[in-house]
Amino acid sequence: MKSILILHGPNLNLLGQREPEVYGVVTLDEINQRLVTFAAEHGVELRTVQSNHEGELIDALHDADDWADGVIFNPGGYTHTSVALRDAVAAIKVPVVEVHLSNIHAREEFRRQSLIASVCAGTIAGFGWRSYVLGLEWYIGKLGDW
Amino acid sequence: MKSILILHGPNLNLLGQREPEVYGVVTLDEINQRLVTFAAEHGVELRTVQSNHEGELIDALHDADDWADGVIFNPGGYTHTSVALRDAVAAIKVPVVEVHLSNIHAREEFRRQSLIASVCAGTIAGFGWRSYVLGLEWYIGKLGDW
Amino acid sequence: MKSILILHGPNLNLLGQREPEVYGVVTLDEINQRLVTFAAEHGVELRTVQSNHEGELIDALHDADDWADGVIFNPGGYTHTSVALRDAVAAIKVPVVEVHLSNIHAREEFRRQSLIASVCAGTIAGFGWRSYVLGLEWYIGKLGDW
Amino acid sequence: MKSILILHGPNLNLLGQREPEVYGVVTLDEINQRLVTFAAEHGVELRTVQSNHEGELIDALHDADDWADGVIFNPGGYTHTSVALRDAVAAIKVPVVEVHLSNIHAREEFRRQSLIASVCAGTIAGFGWRSYVLGLEWYIGKLGDW
Amino acid sequence: MKSILILHGPNLNLLGQREPEVYGVVTLDEINQRLVTFAAEHGVELRTVQSNHEGELIDALHDADDWADGVIFNPGGYTHTSVALRDAVAAIKVPVVEVHLSNIHAREEFRRQSLIASVCAGTIAGFGWRSYVLGLEWYIGKLGDW
Amino acid sequence: MKSILILHGPNLNLLGQREPEVYGVVTLDEINQRLVTFAAEHGVELRTVQSNHEGELIDALHDADDWADGVIFNPGGYTHTSVALRDAVAAIKVPVVEVHLSNIHAREEFRRQSLIASVCAGTIAGFGWRSYVLGLEWYIGKLGDW
Amino acid sequence: MKSILILHGPNLNLLGQREPEVYGVVTLDEINQRLVTFAAEHGVELRTVQSNHEGELIDALHDADDWADGVIFNPGGYTHTSVALRDAVAAIKVPVVEVHLSNIHAREEFRRQSLIASVCAGTIAGFGWRSYVLGLEWYIGKLGDW
Amino acid sequence: MKSILILHGPNLNLLGQREPEVYGVVTLDEINQRLVTFAAEHGVELRTVQSNHEGELIDALHDADDWADGVIFNPGGYTHTSVALRDAVAAIKVPVVEVHLSNIHAREEFRRQSLIASVCAGTIAGFGWRSYVLGLEWYIGKLGDW
Amino acid sequence: MKSILILHGPNLNLLGQREPEVYGVVTLDEINQRLVTFAAEHGVELRTVQSNHEGELIDALHDADDWADGVIFNPGGYTHTSVALRDAVAAIKVPVVEVHLSNIHAREEFRRQSLIASVCAGTIAGFGWRSYVLGLEWYIGKLGDW
Amino acid sequence: MKSILILHGPNLNLLGQREPEVYGVVTLDEINQRLVTFAAEHGVELRTVQSNHEGELIDALHDADDWADGVIFNPGGYTHTSVALRDAVAAIKVPVVEVHLSNIHAREEFRRQSLIASVCAGTIAGFGWRSYVLGLEWYIGKLGDW
Amino acid sequence: MKSILILHGPNLNLLGQREPEVYGVVTLDEINQRLVTFAAEHGVELRTVQSNHEGELIDALHDADDWADGVIFNPGGYTHTSVALRDAVAAIKVPVVEVHLSNIHAREEFRRQSLIASVCAGTIAGFGWRSYVLGLEWYIGKLGDW
Amino acid sequence: MKSILILHGPNLNLLGQREPEVYGVVTLDEINQRLVTFAAEHGVELRTVQSNHEGELIDALHDADDWADGVIFNPGGYTHTSVALRDAVAAIKVPVVEVHLSNIHAREEFRRQSLIASVCAGTIAGFGWRSYVLGLEWYIGKLGDW
Repeated sequence: MKSILILHGPNLNLLGQREPEVYGVVTLDEINQRLVTFAAEHGVELRTVQSNHEGELIDALHDADDWADGVIFNPGGYTHTSVALRDAVAAIKVPVVEVHLSNIHAREEFRRQSLIASVCAGTIAGFGWRSYVLGLEWYIGKLGDW
Repeated sequence: MKSILILHGPNLNLLGQREPEVYGVVTLDEINQRLVTFAAEHGVELRTVQSNHEGELIDALHDADDWADGVIFNPGGYTHTSVALRDAVAAIKVPVVEVHLSNIHAREEFRRQSLIASVCAGTIAGFGWRSYVLGLEWYIGKLGDW
Repeated sequence: MKSILILHGPNLNLLGQREPEVYGVVTLDEINQRLVTFAAEHGVELRTVQSNHEGELIDALHDADDWADGVIFNPGGYTHTSVALRDAVAAIKVPVVEVHLSNIHAREEFRRQSLIASVCAGTIAGFGWRSYVLGLEWYIGKLGDW
Repeated sequence: MKSILILHGPNLNLLGQREPEVYGVVTLDEINQRLVTFAAEHGVELRTVQSNHEGELIDALHDADDWADGVIFNPGGYTHTSVALRDAVAAIKVPVVEVHLSNIHAREEFRRQSLIASVCAGTIAGFGWRSYVLGLEWYIGKLGDW
Repeated sequence: MKSILILHGPNLNLLGQREPEVYGVVTLDEINQRLVTFAAEHGVELRTVQSNHEGELIDALHDADDWADGVIFNPGGYTHTSVALRDAVAAIKVPVVEVHLSNIHAREEFRRQSLIASVCAGTIAGFGWRSYVLGLEWYIGKLGDW
Repeated sequence: MKSILILHGPNLNLLGQREPEVYGVVTLDEINQRLVTFAAEHGVELRTVQSNHEGELIDALHDADDWADGVIFNPGGYTHTSVALRDAVAAIKVPVVEVHLSNIHAREEFRRQSLIASVCAGTIAGFGWRSYVLGLEWYIGKLGDW
Repeated sequence: MKSILILHGPNLNLLGQREPEVYGVVTLDEINQRLVTFAAEHGVELRTVQSNHEGELIDALHDADDWADGVIFNPGGYTHTSVALRDAVAAIKVPVVEVHLSNIHAREEFRRQSLIASVCAGTIAGFGWRSYVLGLEWYIGKLGDW
Repeated sequence: MKSILILHGPNLNLLGQREPEVYGVVTLDEINQRLVTFAAEHGVELRTVQSNHEGELIDALHDADDWADGVIFNPGGYTHTSVALRDAVAAIKVPVVEVHLSNIHAREEFRRQSLIASVCAGTIAGFGWRSYVLGLEWYIGKLGDW
Repeated sequence: MKSILILHGPNLNLLGQREPEVYGVVTLDEINQRLVTFAAEHGVELRTVQSNHEGELIDALHDADDWADGVIFNPGGYTHTSVALRDAVAAIKVPVVEVHLSNIHAREEFRRQSLIASVCAGTIAGFGWRSYVLGLEWYIGKLGDW
Repeated sequence: MKSILILHGPNLNLLGQREPEVYGVVTLDEINQRLVTFAAEHGVELRTVQSNHEGELIDALHDADDWADGVIFNPGGYTHTSVALRDAVAAIKVPVVEVHLSNIHAREEFRRQSLIASVCAGTIAGFGWRSYVLGLEWYIGKLGDW
Repeated sequence: MKSILILHGPNLNLLGQREPEVYGVVTLDEINQRLVTFAAEHGVELRTVQSNHEGELIDALHDADDWADGVIFNPGGYTHTSVALRDAVAAIKVPVVEVHLSNIHAREEFRRQSLIASVCAGTIAGFGWRSYVLGLEWYIGKLGDW
Repeated sequence: MKSILILHGPNLNLLGQREPEVYGVVTLDEINQRLVTFAAEHGVELRTVQSNHEGELIDALHDADDWADGVIFNPGGYTHTSVALRDAVAAIKVPVVEVHLSNIHAREEFRRQSLIASVCAGTIAGFGWRSYVLGLEWYIGKLGDW
């Protein structure tokens, strides 16, 4: 059975609780629930981690290299500023897909550049919680024989 | 039955014929074939258009507003330079998903900015021809009740 | 009798049909109608051309040099990116007035620079379809003896 | 009867007296004369003000809000440097049209950006003293029923 | 008895009269009234000056050096462009506190830099007319023995 | 009774212990003491937190949203680099006042921009430990009826 | 017998007809004539294409890959703005030499960067129509045994 | 007899009174005295003007065109920001020499560019009040036969 | 006996385990071993700390100020982004030597600037694990009498 | 008989001796040999100079103005940094053709701008030692009657 | 008797011989002659040096520190690019006055910044060969008692 | 026996003679003496060269490739401006270590970038004359078997 890490970056624990006009009303727990169910239907086991701490996210990426077949990573506000997270993604062998809930290109200037994108397998942005689903579909499609 | 336009920008007609180490060995016809089959299985009709002409791509977007339920658009080299294509995407009511075969953030400096991304529903980059499939999956998921 | 070319750039064919809150409800045909009537009252014959193709706009400018006494040109999204259109305007002898429906200075950063302005006789921006009328009035005033 | 303020910025008092190869031989008095006559023919009363003082131009804009139906403003060298004038234009309710004698886009780098344009109704540049006339025509056209 | 100059820059004379959604409904006179009363209760005498003229603001700063124990200065639109005002603040010995009604960091790009801040005792921005009060409280606290 | 969080960012634990010529001789404990006393006199309860960890500061802001009526936040070196902290401030409903001991505009180039300022209620900088007091005074004044 | 494509970009059809002080009095037909004769003397067959349309230039490059031994390309105004043309040059296997009539480094700022140069075999600029001849001489020299 | 205007910009009225470590202990009056005496010895009549008002400096330059044979201008803080003063210098026929007391290249970044220098006859900076003397010597030398 | 802190930043725990073509095959433990042995031979006691957490690195630097005679610090990916770490280095009295395994100037653009370098005693980059040794040699040489 | 100077800049003396994978195996002597032979066949006398010293290159250019009919100059690493060499080229009357072995546009960022190009007759880059030959062909063609 | 070095940088040996419309018809020898005569009349001995070699100019500055009371230096094209010359000027104790024949602010962009100005006593630019005279007058005035 | 070149760039001949507060009181001769002694103790022969001439430094690097096992190079002011020196370092096969006496990152803006660093084996900066010693230690360590 394949295993995938869903890694949520800073402030994503607030999903569905605050600023619903921006982030929607679905909570992080509900999103994780849906993803776990969807993955299970395709024979994939998920582990989900959320942290507001840059260092914990680095640790989680290092750790995933030992057990996961793939990582789906939403780096949140660290997307644009963290060379250390970039180095962590580059250093591990397991592929990482970068996802964003919103279209980062349609927001403030300082959000348009992703330091992390160029070391990821690919990037998916703008589809809300379905961005995670599309990341899962890619892993499933790649492993299947379609 | 739903209808979607797959719109391929400049130089994509060469896919699979030249520079296979960069673009793979699958031709554009083969990709279109796979997408049509995949879409049909989900009750979606596809039309596929390729053009090297900026004006023809604008015309195709305008035209799609009259018959399509969604557009999946790979703007190729125009991604980074065409305000006119951006205006065309913004002017039509049908949603547009921007896709790229390669990870544009990992290439030359002048490829990192997309003028078109901020007026699209979302962006998918780096998954080769599967980028188109993920775009389709989003449309299907959104229309379905998953 | 004097002759003037009204040249409309990309996406202007959509005027009045889509995004009325931005572009108003008057269609391009209606604008052309009004301009032709107004011009005729002042003894000026108009030809109107619209194209989404950069190359066709260049061709139209070249062609106008053979028959027109003036050009009123709304380059749309090509305003900010086309050195080739700039060169076409610079290469012909007939004067060109640049017009814009909206105030380009009050929009996105990438719309604030016009590559074309510095080779035009003058620029008029922000008055909606009346920007074209003001361009006509300048040609008429210049020919008259006010 | 409608009233419009013609507001001339710094150094425009020298018009027609110096550098005729750049600014022509018509003096500011002659321009004002022509504009007053033209306006009167269309039932519009003009007041004309010229000042080299940024503060006096701000005062004149504030003052115009109490009596004028429109302002035609040539901010001269303050165009590119004065946030205070921009704020004054933004703060008053009467519409302001920005005019320039010359094509500011064809001059030095530091003249290409207008801080004031984005809070004006529109911009007219490059038609010499006729730039003012076109501004007047817009006010007249807007008030009439053409 | 201590004396403080409240110095209001360009366009602040319009406070409460125009654009109430931005600047509130309190007029400059009312703000001055409140500040005078508040100061008097703490044994401080205020003089208030408003000018739209850069030169008059410089003169007022020079002049304050002869009689005031402190200056609270809202430089308005000159904040971002006036090296001359900066030099005036640097040249006088009396301390100057820079205040702004709105949060200048949340507005347009060109408003984010203050040329004047680095020669002031401190900066207070974003608290509406209470920005002035906080400036007064600092002077009072510094003179007192809290 | 109202409650306010005083949140101190990285390196502020060293206050009064090192570099007294820059940061003064008052320790963080003494500052907290004074603020608690001052607040109590005005019927406000304070909690004070200091951390060198970006993630802990984010956690503290999230947490404050559940119990505090206001936050006074000195983000220290994270002011200029942390999009994640900015997102945390923007995501919570309780207002946040940004304070700095020193005048950040008079220091190195890379300290002049605050990523956090534009999502705060206001900014106070340059008054040493009194910057915190002024923040408190604003909360007290806003809640009172002065 | 070897075959070479001479590809002329936008506005070059006007050569010799307009702005002779900039572009000389030789027409494009005359240049093509001379090049064909010169090439024939060295056993090389030429085809010449001119287009103002970016898309047609891309098509011509794609097409040349099937029959030509080399391309000499003057991209005109597209030199500085077209990522799509760059991609076309990079995608084909036949070598491309970039030529310019004038010294692009001695003209406006926006003409100094060539997006296309770095994917060409070499660049020749500033020798008028002889720039094309030098390109031909390189192909001939490379094929010969000098 | 020749006549020269010595024009002092903003804050120069404070010379010798404040910040003596930067500006020396000589007052503006004493400098003017010395210059008048020196000029008289060489048969040149001086008029000296100081103003903190940008508009008054523009007026003084316009005025000098009617009576002066030369201007020596220290634009102070307006050096770096005033396009209007630059235009005034460019518009008058009398030559203008730009002088600065201090070496502007050795000060803050924003002081290193002079908008005015490029329209002056020459620039002299860094010699304290002797900068004015050198300006006078140039005028005297130019008029004499050395 | 002298004491020195060897402080390893983010991702350095992976040394020798992953990407050996970039980072070599020596693990962090082996490097620490060698450094401890080398230091002991010169009468210096080492403590070694590695953390992926910015906050923990700040804490370690604060802490070292109480017991260490010197710090050798490899800030990894935080080198280029952390003002907070810079402030920590500046705030402590013990000297800090910045070391890097690779030549940061020969890598990506965003790695070329070190925010931390200017507050360190010196910088050593490009010598692999020997960079740490050279740092030790400097401390030993400085303490000795060579 | 015509005379041409072949001027080789810094490090070109190493050609063919080191880094053959970049610069080829032909030495500078061999290149000079070929060029001398080729030129002689066309009735042109060559002198060849190589220097690593900026000043000697300037001297050689000055000197060539007295005897040469043309200069072919490869400025090497000085291309991008030497205003003094640019001034030397501009100051002499003999035409100068700039040549480069490699395509400077395809190399590092700092090599893309040539300070010297805009004062040369033309530029040839990317054809290895044949770049010099093409420069010679231009001189021969220009002098002949083709 | 006082001694001063007149140091001429690259290409100044061509003065009066070439490009007279830019540099005038006076040769460097004639200028030196005039300066020697003028200096002698004021009891000052001159030595004059010209070199196109950056290293020789550095040597000359080092050397002057042993015998000269002042240096008047025209760094020519090295003004804008030579950190080494700047360091040489900063390293010697004898004062250096920077002079330029032309107004460097009115020329190309890359000529507007002087790396050397900020370590000189002062700068004089735009007065042709009289720039040197003014430099001499400053030394004479400073040594005299005027 | 191994041989190493110590190469000192411009102005380093002044070490210990001038500006002792910046550069210390040790002369270049004394430093060379110490280095020769130290090297001899480790069986390494040194040659030391100093030059203010960019060309001579290039020559010395070329020359070293024939006899030296390593180079320790302090490029002084040429560090930041010389592409030619960079090319010389890149062209030779012997490894080069870049050293600086002072911490170049803590000095002026224009000193922060090293054009030479990215082609060196490593960089050592900020340790005064001990920077050279550390460079030597690296060569010794690398050759030894530690």
